[in-house]
Amino acid sequence: MRELVLVGIGTGAPGHLTDDGRDALTRADVVLLPRKGSDKAALAELRVALLRSIGSSARIAPFDMPNRNEILPYEERVERWHDAIAAVWAEALRVAKPQGAVALMVWGDPGLYDSTLRIAARLDPVPRLRVIPGITALQALTAAHAIPFNSVAGSVLVTTGRRLRTEGWPANAETVAVMLDGDGAFAALPDQGLHIWWGAYLGMTEQILDAGPIAEAAPRIASARAAARLRHGWIMDTYLLRRGA
Amino acid sequence: MRELVLVGIGTGAPGHLTDDGRDALTRADVVLLPRKGSDKAALAELRVALLRSIGSSARIAPFDMPNRNEILPYEERVERWHDAIAAVWAEALRVAKPQGAVALMVWGDPGLYDSTLRIAARLDPVPRLRVIPGITALQALTAAHAIPFNSVAGSVLVTTGRRLRTEGWPANAETVAVMLDGDGAFAALPDQGLHIWWGAYLGMTEQILDAGPIAEAAPRIASARAAARLRHGWIMDTYLLRRGA
Repeated sequence: MRELVLVGIGTGAPGHLTDDGRDALTRADVVLLPRKGSDKAALAELRVALLRSIGSSARIAPFDMPNRNEILPYEERVERWHDAIAAVWAEALRVAKPQGAVALMVWGDPGLYDSTLRIAARLDPVPRLRVIPGITALQALTAAHAIPFNSVAGSVLVTTGRRLRTEGWPANAETVAVMLDGDGAFAALPDQGLHIWWGAYLGMTEQILDAGPIAEAAPRIASARAAARLRHGWIMDTYLLRRGA
Repeated sequence: MRELVLVGIGTGAPGHLTDDGRDALTRADVVLLPRKGSDKAALAELRVALLRSIGSSARIAPFDMPNRNEILPYEERVERWHDAIAAVWAEALRVAKPQGAVALMVWGDPGLYDSTLRIAARLDPVPRLRVIPGITALQALTAAHAIPFNSVAGSVLVTTGRRLRTEGWPANAETVAVMLDGDGAFAALPDQGLHIWWGAYLGMTEQILDAGPIAEAAPRIASARAAARLRHGWIMDTYLLRRGA
């Protein structure tokens, strides 16, 4: 493998693809792709559809995502899981025998709450890496609501649902953007004049949006979230919280 | 005006343009564009070149950026400046008499440290707004360095040079991403085992990168920054700081 290109493809809207992303996927000899069923099925299908829609003739090297060990402590579990994914990639590439660049289609942006860079660093030898940025869920969220990410001259804490749940509202924070929240940590926040802008399936045809003062909006979002997860079998969502908005 | 579309065009790399961005710029009847000389000249020219390269036949409604009042306190100064820009847009649109959508080409993403949404809200009547996300300088930075934005399960504070300078290293912060820093606030930070990843003219042919432990890298970056600003007449740069990296 001459080069491993991590291509941020946005959040499922075909219109999120950048020219650099299209170019990299078109020129790649091999695309490493999680097999349907091993990832959230709808997302795996979207990747294949995107690849076909741009007319890429890259060969597909499919791989099955290993299962996570749910017993180990969080950090060790993540480390082991990344090791296992790297091993699965290496095997898929051994079979595919790439003659040119290998590409990986990354949901959102390869830099933002994504493991691909860390997994790639485990390959032996470590390939030459190229990263193509992509539209993130946070950008799709603020665009869909037509709101600014930050207040004038303000700062924004980008964090995870896990941290928000365990640490509560961060001291001195004005705006908090929350990723990777499987359990709706917003519902457990004390009301401190927070406003929430929420979105699920951002950029996709299934997109749902809601916003409002958190006291009113949180129960509404929690039930919309549960219903959508039941209907689709999975959910990807994100939200922005702002104090005194 | 039926609709005002704010199109994030990325940071100057033509390859940052998304399909949604191209589509909006191609369909627009009128594109509101700062006149060369009123903005940083190189950036105004890049916008026109991008518009031509995608074959958009939109009419250009040029406007001159008003000067900022440098005497007023910061917040009032920003408010007045936004008022003045909205008035200049309204006048440019009165002359152009758009029959369809009006588009604005926004550097980076219209949600991230950009005033366009706030200025658009001052138009009377307020137009229907559509926002197309674009690649930000922070994404171009992490992609160019092939680094993740966040540490595993970590949070990131996105802030401004002004805040970093006046408030110092934020309490409990692990990763800090700094925007709008005209004066290299990183140079004034006490060494606390910080690592810096810096980039200027990100995505452009002039791109410069540097990275390292801050004690070693800060003086090097400060002089590279000063030299580049002198050479080009302007600079746009951003950086990420991580503790214990």
